[in-house]
Amino acid sequence: MSSLKGRDLLSIADLTPEEMRTVLDLASDLKKGEKKFNSNKTLGLLFYKASTRTRVSFSVAMYQLGGNVIDLNPSRTQVGRGEPLEDTARVLDRYLDILAIRTFAQEDIETFADYSDIPIINALTDLEHPCQILADLQTIEESFGCLEGLTLTYLGDGNNVAHSLLLGGVLMGMNVRIASPEGYLPDENIVKQAQALAKKPEQVIVTQSAKEAAENAHVLYTDVWASMGQEEETAQRIPIFQPYQINQELVNLADDSAIILHCLPAYREKEITAEVMEGRQSRIWDEAENRMHAQKALMACLLGLG
Amino acid sequence: MSSLKGRDLLSIADLTPEEMRTVLDLASDLKKGEKKFNSNKTLGLLFYKASTRTRVSFSVAMYQLGGNVIDLNPSRTQVGRGEPLEDTARVLDRYLDILAIRTFAQEDIETFADYSDIPIINALTDLEHPCQILADLQTIEESFGCLEGLTLTYLGDGNNVAHSLLLGGVLMGMNVRIASPEGYLPDENIVKQAQALAKKPEQVIVTQSAKEAAENAHVLYTDVWASMGQEEETAQRIPIFQPYQINQELVNLADDSAIILHCLPAYREKEITAEVMEGRQSRIWDEAENRMHAQKALMACLLGLG
Amino acid sequence: MSSLKGRDLLSIADLTPEEMRTVLDLASDLKKGEKKFNSNKTLGLLFYKASTRTRVSFSVAMYQLGGNVIDLNPSRTQVGRGEPLEDTARVLDRYLDILAIRTFAQEDIETFADYSDIPIINALTDLEHPCQILADLQTIEESFGCLEGLTLTYLGDGNNVAHSLLLGGVLMGMNVRIASPEGYLPDENIVKQAQALAKKPEQVIVTQSAKEAAENAHVLYTDVWASMGQEEETAQRIPIFQPYQINQELVNLADDSAIILHCLPAYREKEITAEVMEGRQSRIWDEAENRMHAQKALMACLLGLG
Repeated sequence: MSSLKGRDLLSIADLTPEEMRTVLDLASDLKKGEKKFNSNKTLGLLFYKASTRTRVSFSVAMYQLGGNVIDLNPSRTQVGRGEPLEDTARVLDRYLDILAIRTFAQEDIETFADYSDIPIINALTDLEHPCQILADLQTIEESFGCLEGLTLTYLGDGNNVAHSLLLGGVLMGMNVRIASPEGYLPDENIVKQAQALAKKPEQVIVTQSAKEAAENAHVLYTDVWASMGQEEETAQRIPIFQPYQINQELVNLADDSAIILHCLPAYREKEITAEVMEGRQSRIWDEAENRMHAQKALMACLLGLG
Repeated sequence: MSSLKGRDLLSIADLTPEEMRTVLDLASDLKKGEKKFNSNKTLGLLFYKASTRTRVSFSVAMYQLGGNVIDLNPSRTQVGRGEPLEDTARVLDRYLDILAIRTFAQEDIETFADYSDIPIINALTDLEHPCQILADLQTIEESFGCLEGLTLTYLGDGNNVAHSLLLGGVLMGMNVRIASPEGYLPDENIVKQAQALAKKPEQVIVTQSAKEAAENAHVLYTDVWASMGQEEETAQRIPIFQPYQINQELVNLADDSAIILHCLPAYREKEITAEVMEGRQSRIWDEAENRMHAQKALMACLLGLG
Repeated sequence: MSSLKGRDLLSIADLTPEEMRTVLDLASDLKKGEKKFNSNKTLGLLFYKASTRTRVSFSVAMYQLGGNVIDLNPSRTQVGRGEPLEDTARVLDRYLDILAIRTFAQEDIETFADYSDIPIINALTDLEHPCQILADLQTIEESFGCLEGLTLTYLGDGNNVAHSLLLGGVLMGMNVRIASPEGYLPDENIVKQAQALAKKPEQVIVTQSAKEAAENAHVLYTDVWASMGQEEETAQRIPIFQPYQINQELVNLADDSAIILHCLPAYREKEITAEVMEGRQSRIWDEAENRMHAQKALMACLLGLG
């Protein structure tokens, strides 16, 4: 684990496959109660967007590691008074042991990382959502016993979750297919980065056809069609995204053993039907729980515990 | 205590008299320092209304039990983004050990309880305020050494506090009198439920006469005339509620040993005079303190500690 | 330490020189890790103004003492509903072990202190900022190995920081010079109080000349020109305060060994140039870090730990 000590996690691709393996194995051990840590560290949460799962799962994870949490509500801190990020980063570095940031621009968390020695964790930016993907991979592995060679199909907006799934899935030897409507495809640089990480070209497929993407997939994954800050586009997006809905018809195209994931919150009969969400193949609630275990393992590694 | 492990407390009447006895005895032991627990559990606080006493007393109670607290400010969580309560409940259930909710509709906490396995505590709804009543009963018992046979008179708005006092008092063998103006009487269903719990009909008296209700009472209890969300009605309510003010004249009608309770915040010269509030019979600050001890005992029971 | 147990810190002048010495020595020991405490106390933070450094440094300090923190956001508590401070103070006294308050009127924290037995800490009022000054003195002592006889020059608004520097510096035998423009001089009562505490008249100098004040000084200190709540005055204040800017020219007037302090947040090219702020004489980030150590020592003393 020592190689991760003191490091940042700004992108899921900051991890090597071996390091990801370390985190996933520890997450599994922590979930089973086979490993425990007790260290009085302080985690800061600097969240510029609303959050339930991320904030609670990070907090409980740190509490169960024996530590404490400070919720740095930007509206109540000097950050909101126009203090440069560089200064805030340098000061927080003197107080905190580790800091998770949810914000808009990837550059902002890079600035924080540049100006502080403590580990900085990307808890969601417009570009990536690496902690979500750690939990997703843990959930997939719980169902299939492995990751390599499995096909994960993400349907919908080519957003931060899609980006981190592409990079993280390919890193672990999975085939990742992204099916998005025109104009909502994943960022080209991320796709190129994923292609560069892939051992075989078929590991990265970006398509506009939901049906082709779903065929024989082991994982069907979706996210809300309009993310935080895009709510006013919801009505306009519905007809565009309708063909990418995960419904029973689409599930029938996937592998018989396929599982359904969703990073929540979910809008039933929009990106996913209630039938599929509550159906036997859904692992959505386990996936939510795994946020806590995966982030606990990640923090333990970055803090060099144990 | 084992019978309470894993249970919810949505209404004070969810407890049997024996279970209430268990909680009150433990609250007393905890206050005296005769019992201590040290367990690293996490309490969630989901409060849709402002709160000082409830939030602080729950937090300190959990800290003193060795645990941690997450303040789930709804305005900063997905709950505020229109996620169904059912989904929020199912996710929080995976992270938290116990959850206290302050909200409007009793149905909402029932939904939470239906969709989660962890104990759900009613930290105030429009219908009931059971945790307040646990502290009240503890305070009364500290003064009189018993509860059975004592007469408690509540004066004012027939609100959630009045409801829980009716049910909780009757459960413990007390005589409970509610004196409220017309149009502000307690909920009929609650009165019927209290009558059904009573061993003798005189245990439940609902009247419009403050003086009759106060006569020979052992406890005089009041609450603000306009609760949170009703502030704009304050001016209109003053003349209606004036006859129900706890002042020295009214106190003189009660038993010589009578104590005065108020669940706070208090408006002097409105529902209670400063003279009575600061007088020798007031137990208002002890009552506030007992919120912490009673809730600590309650959580220890619901979590199955010790 | 026992003399500080249970006391309040409303003004830096609440401490005798011997008590300040106790706190500063403990702060140094805690920073070096030569002393540790482990006590499950609860700190309340009641902050009516935005805060990064104060809130985080107090929280981490209490966590590292083994305790817990409750953030009493006034907008979400009954304090915001017009409950008298006296009542809030009496209730919080029953739940908390220690309370730090950031507010406007010094009278408000005095009221809190009057109505509660637990230690009340001034975490910033319009009149004083004693916790900042403890950290400042610790930082100066780290650089010079002593305090007595050193000259500290504060340039800019004669505000709460200036007040506490005057009183605290003089108490510890320093010469304190305040250079402020007309109309922004420190409070006359504070100046008189500092003069009364001084052993020699030259320990207290209040002037409108930045250059005279800076000459041969060991510490140059500044703060924002417009504090929280005065932002709309910023444009108007700039020309008035320009002569008080800490720039290299001014630094050259000071002692060769002089250090530069700023209580942050800083506005570069306003009250301080980027060159000086990032220069070799700046101790600004150490000063920020020392908030945590100094407040940890202070709380340990007031709580009677160890």
